[in-house]
Amino acid sequence: MSRTACAQTEMVRAGLDALLLTTEPEVRYYTGFLTRFWESPTRPWFVVLPVSGAPVAIIPAIGAPLMARTWVKDVRTWPAPRPEDDGIGLLARTLGELTPANGRIGLAEGHESHLQMPLAGLAALRDQLGLRTIVDDRGITRRLRQVKSPAEVDKIRFAAKIADRAFGRLSSIASPGDPISLVFRRFQMLCLEEGADWVPYLAGACAPGGYEDVISPADERPLQLGDVLMLDTGLVHDGYFCDFDRNYSLGPPSNAVASAHARLIEATEAAATAVRPGETMAGLYRLMADRLQLTAGSGRLGHGVGQQLTEGASILPDDHTELVAGMVIALEPMINLAPGKIMVHEENITVTENAYEWLSSPQKPQIRVLA
Amino acid sequence: MSRTACAQTEMVRAGLDALLLTTEPEVRYYTGFLTRFWESPTRPWFVVLPVSGAPVAIIPAIGAPLMARTWVKDVRTWPAPRPEDDGIGLLARTLGELTPANGRIGLAEGHESHLQMPLAGLAALRDQLGLRTIVDDRGITRRLRQVKSPAEVDKIRFAAKIADRAFGRLSSIASPGDPISLVFRRFQMLCLEEGADWVPYLAGACAPGGYEDVISPADERPLQLGDVLMLDTGLVHDGYFCDFDRNYSLGPPSNAVASAHARLIEATEAAATAVRPGETMAGLYRLMADRLQLTAGSGRLGHGVGQQLTEGASILPDDHTELVAGMVIALEPMINLAPGKIMVHEENITVTENAYEWLSSPQKPQIRVLA
Repeated sequence: MSRTACAQTEMVRAGLDALLLTTEPEVRYYTGFLTRFWESPTRPWFVVLPVSGAPVAIIPAIGAPLMARTWVKDVRTWPAPRPEDDGIGLLARTLGELTPANGRIGLAEGHESHLQMPLAGLAALRDQLGLRTIVDDRGITRRLRQVKSPAEVDKIRFAAKIADRAFGRLSSIASPGDPISLVFRRFQMLCLEEGADWVPYLAGACAPGGYEDVISPADERPLQLGDVLMLDTGLVHDGYFCDFDRNYSLGPPSNAVASAHARLIEATEAAATAVRPGETMAGLYRLMADRLQLTAGSGRLGHGVGQQLTEGASILPDDHTELVAGMVIALEPMINLAPGKIMVHEENITVTENAYEWLSSPQKPQIRVLA
Repeated sequence: MSRTACAQTEMVRAGLDALLLTTEPEVRYYTGFLTRFWESPTRPWFVVLPVSGAPVAIIPAIGAPLMARTWVKDVRTWPAPRPEDDGIGLLARTLGELTPANGRIGLAEGHESHLQMPLAGLAALRDQLGLRTIVDDRGITRRLRQVKSPAEVDKIRFAAKIADRAFGRLSSIASPGDPISLVFRRFQMLCLEEGADWVPYLAGACAPGGYEDVISPADERPLQLGDVLMLDTGLVHDGYFCDFDRNYSLGPPSNAVASAHARLIEATEAAATAVRPGETMAGLYRLMADRLQLTAGSGRLGHGVGQQLTEGASILPDDHTELVAGMVIALEPMINLAPGKIMVHEENITVTENAYEWLSSPQKPQIRVLA
């Protein structure tokens, strides 16, 4: 309920009569509606949050029993999919009830947002809204979601501990000769065995002396001595992600790899030590980029974590978002070893009243070794 | 390449000078770009498919090495995220090169589509396009994707065999007293052990004499004798989904449950037997709905399966899409046992030149029993 009240306070300031929510994290943030069914792109789902009163769910009938278990009492459904009017008429009538004739309806239109409904549906909705207008939501939900409640931080901490334990067992499932595809499968099994509800994200790389990129799926190449193996996972506990990686050297690391790993850890610690309310994302960027001698345009060195694998804000030179107690951040420095050879390290941390708390277990300068 | 050529033939007919692609399945369909990094919603990704020539990728720099391994040779990047211009300027210039000054650019706007970029970005793009207009893509990509190549059907068949084997081992991981959350975790581990690359979807339900809905995540309730347990999984092999479920009776089924399961299987077989080129989705709906005495508005009884868990078309009374060899469909009949008690069965099938081929293993009328 306090999330709704906070949003409504901001809606008054922004002159908005309602928020229209269409994406999984937005809908879940205000209602608690948690399902993996968003994997099916067929049906649009809507929640309207009026400037006063409780949210109203306008959803496919298939979701009614699950939504009825949340605190939302006003649940309106249609038999989706119904391509000729997939909820648009019902949504327009609901907005008609809940907002004045010249009402302003906020929709997330800015950075990192998207609209989870067909564009033709949005056009049809506008046609049915009369004098009401759909305008940018001023980032209200995005901003609220950046600061986690203690209960949210608990869930992310729990997720991170699961991943910590899985990474700790990697030597039992990864040896020279194992195809990386098999290591990926087994690692996801470890995450589940350690308590993950599901594992929406696993990427990584394995190559001699560093890797080329960090978003590739597994291939069939076997692990070899001299490789650096990186696994980056986003696993979910009770709807919340952790997001961090670990690097492993297959056999003793080269001096270059050992040194690169130590410098990544040093940069991560320098940033962590600065984390407190009032510091900025840009400040964290500078601390890491300076130590790692990164040139401009090297990409971001971290981001928010929560209901999504990555959330705003970004650790970028021009992101001046101030840290606030309750934010959860991935610190994610990278280092260039040679053309086409990078290494990336990542930890999760939360901002406390006075400083910070590690959510993942901070790593030693020495890279982990698999033999 | 033939996908591109097919799209270009349709683009000529539709008077389109280019397609603008923003979502994971669209981008992958034409380029082969496969990554789980779409789980991060931060960065937009674009591919432009001109009416002649090869696709051009306009993507965040982080994706350049992986895109370079596809057949796309023209890869243009920017250091995303860059909120003040997150690829829009680069995309507008690219469209300026590839289309005439009054060009028409097709974008997926219809049923089951969405735009995977901020609405503010789309508005900025329109502003920079001069006389060029962005118009509905007439469903070109959606329609092409409905008919799978033999290689695509192979991948879906492979995924279905993995799920078949995992379902076959359920009795080793699910017994009365086990919390459903634990069964869900262990089942995902089975899917991985049997060869799934990842398990993006698992939903299910467990309740006495039938369940209330089919999209819920697991809860902590222990399995009990008399329950019907349903698990519905979408696992991925090489970027392609299967999507089907299995029902289990905890202990001997009641007459009502036994009979409901047998009727679901009978309806599934009736529909399967009708599957051949020229039959329609509406025809399959009628065959199943009649046997199961479903009233209007009961929702769809199946859908396409492929790069996504669910794809068009839908088995609905007014979806007159004709079956074509190469389509892959989930047959998904449901039956009402009592208020708040349903059962759903699901199989995957592909349309062949003359008839059909089961991709999942068709089930017997007798419900599986866990004891």
